[in-house]
Amino acid sequence: MFTDVTPNAPWSEPDLTALAIQAFKGLGLPPADAADVVRVLVQADLFGLNTHGLSRIESYGERLLVGGINPRATITVESPAPALRLVDGDNGVGPLVGMHALRAAMDAATQCGVGLALARGSNHFGPISPYSLIAAEAGFASMIGSNATTTIAPWGGTDARLGNSPLGFGVPNPGGQPFLLDMAMSVVARAKVRNAFKRGETIPDTWATDKAGRPTTDPKSALDGFLLPIGGHKGYGLALLVDLFAGLLSNAAYLTHVKSWVDAPEEPQNLGHFFILIDTRRLGSTEWLTHRMLDFATILHDSVPADASRPVIVPGEIELEKMTRQRETGIVLEAAVVSLLRQHAAKAV
Amino acid sequence: MFTDVTPNAPWSEPDLTALAIQAFKGLGLPPADAADVVRVLVQADLFGLNTHGLSRIESYGERLLVGGINPRATITVESPAPALRLVDGDNGVGPLVGMHALRAAMDAATQCGVGLALARGSNHFGPISPYSLIAAEAGFASMIGSNATTTIAPWGGTDARLGNSPLGFGVPNPGGQPFLLDMAMSVVARAKVRNAFKRGETIPDTWATDKAGRPTTDPKSALDGFLLPIGGHKGYGLALLVDLFAGLLSNAAYLTHVKSWVDAPEEPQNLGHFFILIDTRRLGSTEWLTHRMLDFATILHDSVPADASRPVIVPGEIELEKMTRQRETGIVLEAAVVSLLRQHAAKAV
Repeated sequence: MFTDVTPNAPWSEPDLTALAIQAFKGLGLPPADAADVVRVLVQADLFGLNTHGLSRIESYGERLLVGGINPRATITVESPAPALRLVDGDNGVGPLVGMHALRAAMDAATQCGVGLALARGSNHFGPISPYSLIAAEAGFASMIGSNATTTIAPWGGTDARLGNSPLGFGVPNPGGQPFLLDMAMSVVARAKVRNAFKRGETIPDTWATDKAGRPTTDPKSALDGFLLPIGGHKGYGLALLVDLFAGLLSNAAYLTHVKSWVDAPEEPQNLGHFFILIDTRRLGSTEWLTHRMLDFATILHDSVPADASRPVIVPGEIELEKMTRQRETGIVLEAAVVSLLRQHAAKAV
Repeated sequence: MFTDVTPNAPWSEPDLTALAIQAFKGLGLPPADAADVVRVLVQADLFGLNTHGLSRIESYGERLLVGGINPRATITVESPAPALRLVDGDNGVGPLVGMHALRAAMDAATQCGVGLALARGSNHFGPISPYSLIAAEAGFASMIGSNATTTIAPWGGTDARLGNSPLGFGVPNPGGQPFLLDMAMSVVARAKVRNAFKRGETIPDTWATDKAGRPTTDPKSALDGFLLPIGGHKGYGLALLVDLFAGLLSNAAYLTHVKSWVDAPEEPQNLGHFFILIDTRRLGSTEWLTHRMLDFATILHDSVPADASRPVIVPGEIELEKMTRQRETGIVLEAAVVSLLRQHAAKAV
């Protein structure tokens, strides 16, 4: 089925994909659904986004086993208007619902020039950049967002009432690499605060508040408190708007209605996503887009860097380079992730 | 034509609108076009966004007089796909092009559930929140963006190659006030740095860099340098993506191709905008949306504030309250703005 290698040796993309599909089949998913999930997660690992890649087999697997996620989801798509698709994920694995919504939005955009898919009844759908890449390679510009478990306090508030909701964009570049931006709304990830705590360092007071909602430089207080959004009230506003589009308008849960997958792994989260796709072929020729995208990137790359050792880059460049490198040298995963994949794969029929 | 009052007494909305329409007619615009421009700018003043309201008569007027903006623009709209509208602003006044694009996008969204208008050949189009409000009052959720004159360095770069591009969102709230977010990508506006300089104060090193691209706490160095985007590379990425959608995909100018209206007032800027509109009536009933939006706002307002004197608010609340107050007590403008409006109005036929 797949070439066996020592757990933490680099994997080829096809071998890793085959193993991971077996693992999700072992968790009860039909083969085609397992392939959708794995496409997103392997792409995340190719990009070097390991926290959002196949390491998720742990939390997804746990929730599939306790019935918190439905392994046999019947995903339905309604079209109440020509460019609109309403996707009911039936509490399926997040990247499966995400792939259905992405395809629905691409279909709508092919017909109408722009298409919107709103998904409800979903779960954590991985990072956004894999979807943006698939869209860009098919000629679509994209804006994609998801809501998330509550971890952030309202601006000036004192308890977690909104998620660190991710927002992503992609623009095709027929003559080179697409532009891909995939960002959450906090200044830094929680892991950076945890690392400062482990090293006994202080943190800038712009990263987080204590549990009373006051900015803090103490990583311990910050871990008991809340991450701060980028630009203060601006990031707060952006996180809310992502939740309004991804959660409220999609008829999914939003804000504190989103259940925590940590505290209640057996309950459906009812997360929501939005996918806005634009068919760039309706805007101009491939030559037109190729020329403009290369010019756009060149203007940015030509800015003399403040630090000569760190040239100016464009969004997605780091992830796409990592992908190219790992396609040559193999994908490195933690041994524990490989073990878990093997364990679930062994149960596959 | 309009009630005459002393220059800096508060104005009623109808009187101010009538004066401003006369002023833009005096600058050569047809009456219907003047009305479109004034609708956006008076709404900005109602929101308290005076830097983006009728005070713009100064720069818009100057450019109209030297031929940098076309007072008799023939705005055309193509529809290469059912939900897509390509708007050529013919170098008209920005809010006129903006209103045409907004109407085109609402028309597309009415037909297809979601609509996208991309505008080129435009100029500074005022703030975004007036468009979002008009859309929300008509039942449309919106994502709107524009590119802008270059004032920001690429992340890690040392010269201005991208604009402080604004991005805005709106969601209708049939039972209350809509959510409106209108933000530029810098941590603070340049005016805040200028004020710190005037008061002899230092600034946080997260606001701006010196001209070599190094973070600075000296407001003088910052004024010679560049504003920093929110969240560092995240705000840089967001500003680029707004320019890609608003400028590159619309076939307008982008990045350094956007001419400065200060350095070259007589040249067309060829700015671009995007308007994505979603018809919320295709998503659910008015009762459904009313219930969800009120619940959403309540969850946020109920968070206990860190500072008891500053309750948690939602995006747009400050501007909408200011609008309600000014509709009761009148709109206050600077005397110089009123003089300039009168001066141009006197030339109207």
